[in-house]
This record gives sequence, structure tokens and C-alpha cells, in this order.
Amino acid sequence: MSKIALIGFDADDTLWKSEDYFREAEATFLEIVGRYEDVSASAQALYAIQSRNIALFGYGVKGMVLSMIEAAVEFTNARISAKDIHRIVEIGKAMLDHPVELLPGISDAVRQVAESYPLVLITKGDLFHQERKVAVSGLTEVFQRIEIVSEKNEASYERLFKEFAVDPAEFLMVGNSLRSDIAPVIELGGMGIHVPYHVTWVHEHAEISAGIERFRTAHSAADIPAMIQALAESPTP
Amino acid sequence: MSKIALIGFDADDTLWKSEDYFREAEATFLEIVGRYEDVSASAQALYAIQSRNIALFGYGVKGMVLSMIEAAVEFTNARISAKDIHRIVEIGKAMLDHPVELLPGISDAVRQVAESYPLVLITKGDLFHQERKVAVSGLTEVFQRIEIVSEKNEASYERLFKEFAVDPAEFLMVGNSLRSDIAPVIELGGMGIHVPYHVTWVHEHAEISAGIERFRTAHSAADIPAMIQALAESPTP
Repeated sequence: MSKIALIGFDADDTLWKSEDYFREAEATFLEIVGRYEDVSASAQALYAIQSRNIALFGYGVKGMVLSMIEAAVEFTNARISAKDIHRIVEIGKAMLDHPVELLPGISDAVRQVAESYPLVLITKGDLFHQERKVAVSGLTEVFQRIEIVSEKNEASYERLFKEFAVDPAEFLMVGNSLRSDIAPVIELGGMGIHVPYHVTWVHEHAEISAGIERFRTAHSAADIPAMIQALAESPTP
Repeated sequence: MSKIALIGFDADDTLWKSEDYFREAEATFLEIVGRYEDVSASAQALYAIQSRNIALFGYGVKGMVLSMIEAAVEFTNARISAKDIHRIVEIGKAMLDHPVELLPGISDAVRQVAESYPLVLITKGDLFHQERKVAVSGLTEVFQRIEIVSEKNEASYERLFKEFAVDPAEFLMVGNSLRSDIAPVIELGGMGIHVPYHVTWVHEHAEISAGIERFRTAHSAADIPAMIQALAESPTP
């Protein structure tokens, strides 16, 4: 009998491309500000401003744009033109409007897993943007629930387990972020499959030290279904 | 026996002050832009830009600020300074950081209702900002669940009823917006108590034409508990 009662999937960079768009946005931002100032140290300074603002803005594109505008004013000593600030707003609007690009093999993998287990989508970021991406992805009906949370930490997973009425030991999370998708779930006694993406925002870096017998790494979406089966059938530690 | 199985409360302008802050923000915005241009028609033009952008930004403070920046660039023909644009960002940061001011009598009313019925909070806007306000309000533990949705229409209430496993006829919603809180719930066969607030965003205007026997208006938070009781005991139409 399976040990798994419910499987959670992360969305950004697990189901579809996301961080690439943020990297491109950053490059465009640096190009705009670079017309005013030397920007060799600006990527790091931008990250500092973004990190400071997360407490107010949370995650997502809109907060990123507001932090970029703050940064642009600061970096240029307020010399940046209104037209160039509007270009920064346009970066964000393009991101919010971009097509959803599913990652290779993930659609088949998710649909295959859905044949055997109930699935929930658990993601953070802008509620409105995430709901739009889920709708456009064509995967809405595969997931029993879509949960968009402001932060993915132990407290938020505990709340979700209570809402889902699931024992943490019977929950498995699939995602690209060790910090947000895997570490808190392992810490609470659940299982995790890490699917690394080729770029990871520095904010999402983490290391897993405990519960490694409940933790696997999949280097291809196609490996996920078999890996879930192996975890479901593995002896309880 | 009560006909009510679950009661939903709206948050902004039902539990705490919100629209006043948006009005103040708009006044400050017009003051800033007014240094460059005649702003006698700008409030309406700003609303047009905000409405157009809701499809991309959704509701909430961050989208409001981004629309204000777009509007400021447009209204001033890109003559607005970076410093003044930064002031517009600061308007938003102040709003996201403002203390939560509960409306008169609402805390007692909600706690009294919670003694007899399970309560959920259903609100739209920025996920991060709304979660922060709920936490600061001291009302978190009164609600069994906090649902932050991107839009409050019939489709989103239907999804919630399914998640809550509640029959629409046994659901009652309390809120200040006829359009978002009352009309869709009445339309789906539920009950509604409208608690008008002294200001309503033009976007939230609506009229209720059907189901008026399942619909009441409370002119004071203190009236809510008795009004719920009367609806609970009224004969099924």
C-alpha cells in the first residue's frame, strides 16, 4: 500500500519557465540604468533593495518592478527620466502578459502521477499572476486545489496540511527550490522530490541536512513518476 | 434549526478601514502631478488607467502604484521627475505599512457570531498585504479559514463552496460591496448582509434585483448578529 496520500507540485520553474524571465528583466533594467551610471555592482545592489522590500511587497512581478523603480532612482541619483521609468513598468507588464511555457516532459509526468494520486498546486507570488498562469497552462483540472501562499515555510505547510486534512508523513512535495519546496516539508516529516532548474534565484538557495531517506533529486521531469512510486513503496524509516 | 452552515466576512471596509487610504493616496497623487499639469480631469483618467490594468495587475496597492506611475508619466508628458515618481512609490509603501484600524463594533460583532457559526474570511487584493492585515488585526483565530481570491464573482464563490463543502443556500456573506460580496452570493442562492461603508470605490457599485428576501442591510456592525439570527430562522422561501 502506498505511503502517499497527497502530492504537492510547485509551479514556477517546476511546471513552467519563470526565473529566466526574471533574469531577462534584470538585464533590461541594467541596460536602462546603464545609460546613466556604471552598473557593474548594480545587480547586487538591486537584490539588496528587493530583499529589503519583500517584507512589504512579498514575491512576484509587481513587487519586483516597484523595487526596480526605487533602485533606478537611487542608482542614478534621481537623474533617470520618466520615459525610462515607464520602460521599467513595461518590463513588468510584459512579464505579466508573457505566454506560459511548460518545461519539457512535465505535462506528461504530472498527468501520469495524477492517475494514481490527488495533486495540489502550491506556489507563491502574485495571486493574480499565478492564477492566470495556471489557467493558461491547461493543467487546472489536473489539480484538486490551487494554493497560492505568501511564503513557503514550515508554518504555511502546517496550515495547508491541516486544511487538506493530511498527515505530513503522507505528503510529498515536488519542486525546484530546496528552500521553499523541499526543506520545510522534509523538516515536518514529509517527502520531497527536488527537480533542479538551470537557474535558481539566490534567495531560494538552501541545503538539506536531515531526512535524506525521504528526499530524492530528479534530473528530468520524466523521472518523477517512477521516483514517486519508489518513495511510496519504500519502507517507513 | 438554523439554515446557516457557514458565514463569510469580507475584510477591507467591512472589518477595517481601507478605501479611505486609497482616497488619501489618490489625493496625494493628484497633488504631486498637479505641480506639472492641471489635474481637474485626472481622477477620472487615473481610474480609466487602473481599470485597464486590472486585467494584468489585479487588485491591491502594488497594482495601484504601478498604474499611478503610468498615469503620472502620461499626464505630465513624461516631464515628471524621478524624485516625484519615487514619492508615488512611497505612497504605496506607506499604505502597505499602515496600522490596521478595525471599524467600530466589528470586533465584538464578529466574535459574537463566531460563538454560533463557523466563519471564513473572503477577501481580494494583494495576498501578502491581506495576510499581513489579518495577522495584525488580532482576528486570525476567529476565522476557520482565510481565503484571498483574485476576483469575487460567481465562479470564485462556486469554487469556494465546493472547497468548503457547503450548500450555497446555507451560506451567508457579510460585506460592504454589493458587487463583490452580496450580488454573486445571492445569485447563487445564498444569503447576504450588506454593511455599507461611507465611501465605495466606483468599481464596486452594483444593484441587487433578485433574492431580496435573502438580503439585509446593516447600518451598524452591532446589528449584524441579530440580523444573522433573523435570516437563520426565517422560513425558507
